Amino acid sequence: MMAAMSEFDDATRVAADGATAIADGWDINGNANGGYLLALAANHMRALSGRPDPLSVTGHYLAPGTPGPVQVDATVVKSGRRFSTVTGQMQRDGKPIVQVVGTFGDLTQATDEFEHLASGPPDLPPMDECVARSSVQGVVEVPLNARLNVRLRPGDDSFIRGERKGFAEMAGWFAFADGRPIDPLALLLTCDCFPPAVFHIDLPAGWVPTLEYTVHVRARPAPGPLRCVFRSQFVQGGFFNEDGEVWDSADRLVAHSRQLGLTPLG
Amino acid sequence: MMAAMSEFDDATRVAADGATAIADGWDINGNANGGYLLALAANHMRALSGRPDPLSVTGHYLAPGTPGPVQVDATVVKSGRRFSTVTGQMQRDGKPIVQVVGTFGDLTQATDEFEHLASGPPDLPPMDECVARSSVQGVVEVPLNARLNVRLRPGDDSFIRGERKGFAEMAGWFAFADGRPIDPLALLLTCDCFPPAVFHIDLPAGWVPTLEYTVHVRARPAPGPLRCVFRSQFVQGGFFNEDGEVWDSADRLVAHSRQLGLTPLG
Repeated sequence: MMAAMSEFDDATRVAADGATAIADGWDINGNANGGYLLALAANHMRALSGRPDPLSVTGHYLAPGTPGPVQVDATVVKSGRRFSTVTGQMQRDGKPIVQVVGTFGDLTQATDEFEHLASGPPDLPPMDECVARSSVQGVVEVPLNARLNVRLRPGDDSFIRGERKGFAEMAGWFAFADGRPIDPLALLLTCDCFPPAVFHIDLPAGWVPTLEYTVHVRARPAPGPLRCVFRSQFVQGGFFNEDGEVWDSADRLVAHSRQLGLTPLG
Repeated sequence: MMAAMSEFDDATRVAADGATAIADGWDINGNANGGYLLALAANHMRALSGRPDPLSVTGHYLAPGTPGPVQVDATVVKSGRRFSTVTGQMQRDGKPIVQVVGTFGDLTQATDEFEHLASGPPDLPPMDECVARSSVQGVVEVPLNARLNVRLRPGDDSFIRGERKGFAEMAGWFAFADGRPIDPLALLLTCDCFPPAVFHIDLPAGWVPTLEYTVHVRARPAPGPLRCVFRSQFVQGGFFNEDGEVWDSADRLVAHSRQLGLTPLG
């Protein structure tokens, strides 16, 4: 075990045999955040892969994660010249919580200078002019917010007052509350810890469970807080997508995410 | 074994023990199409799941798939009230080709009437005014095209003549050449069988391998050809996304896809 470096490092430490625990305080109303669970499982999978960076990681959510001991069972499926692919499952007493598959590599090997970006970072006021997520209290307890420094774009916090923008977009800044630098592993958390963008449309209120969540880590973030935007373009038939973009201080896309959520059953 | 019903059914048949084969003629230059491989693996996983519809399926591509016998090894991870999650691997002689995870369910259970669509189907001329993909010959052999009736939006075929639009968008119609109805399993193919949208930007020419590919099946398609649009918004650092939308004749989103591709190494 290494010495504690940050809350996130403490909460994602996994023993060599996959033994670990879902830490306290990374939850929404008692259930651990899905991005945190993915990062916890992926940290062990990354260690097995022998590569430094998660490139594409997908989790399927099978049961809520409550604090306490869990086991991450993982297998390296293929270790190639540039990439390693690993499957993993987080389980407790044999009951699966998240099923994961990921490919790992080294983002510093990316030497291709060709770049084509159809759009750039979201236009946000400076961080201190945005609304601290931890300062507002919605209808459920979100202990996770105390670990993070998430600041919503002014107006995007209106859902807390029962006001909806009418289109499903949520933007703001992301950092850790304790100032930990944001690395590729942390990006698996970043893309899942804003309030759902669907809170801005007239969905029946309620818990919006995630069926599946994928993050593409596109670059190692430059230092500093990250600009994030999440959009749900297609809410239909009881399912919705949420697509996320995360941009660093150098205007590079560092993470690109999508999840498939379930609308509240009314 | 059932009697042959269509080329796609023939090419995706899997024995109860997972024994199957990559069929001839679903390839680009000798390598089977990634969407076809995903559909082949998912067909066995679906059978094990006991549910009719793939809802979210992710494949990580580990080796090219050439025609001939392969084995799909699959395990049901969880079978819940509404969904079943299954992991699977297609391998030949112990060498993995695609690693897959999928959640299966029943799309006819979707009773939620709430709908919020930020955009609709792409605006396409009638199918017979679009350009038959099978009628044009690019620099590589694409036997896959003979199985399909893919028709590109006029102008989107310009890459064949070496002309690029300057932004990475490719749209058109999809149907099977033999008229087979398009079901949720087939949508895993649909989202991967247009020419890459990045052919319309100034990438160095070459093979663009897929690292990871996820399809969300959002509804069972109404009868008839489908309208498809694919976009690569973020080409950076040697990787690019390709996001796909597939719409049916009733203007419903039936599939939503994303893949993480590798740009040619120059």
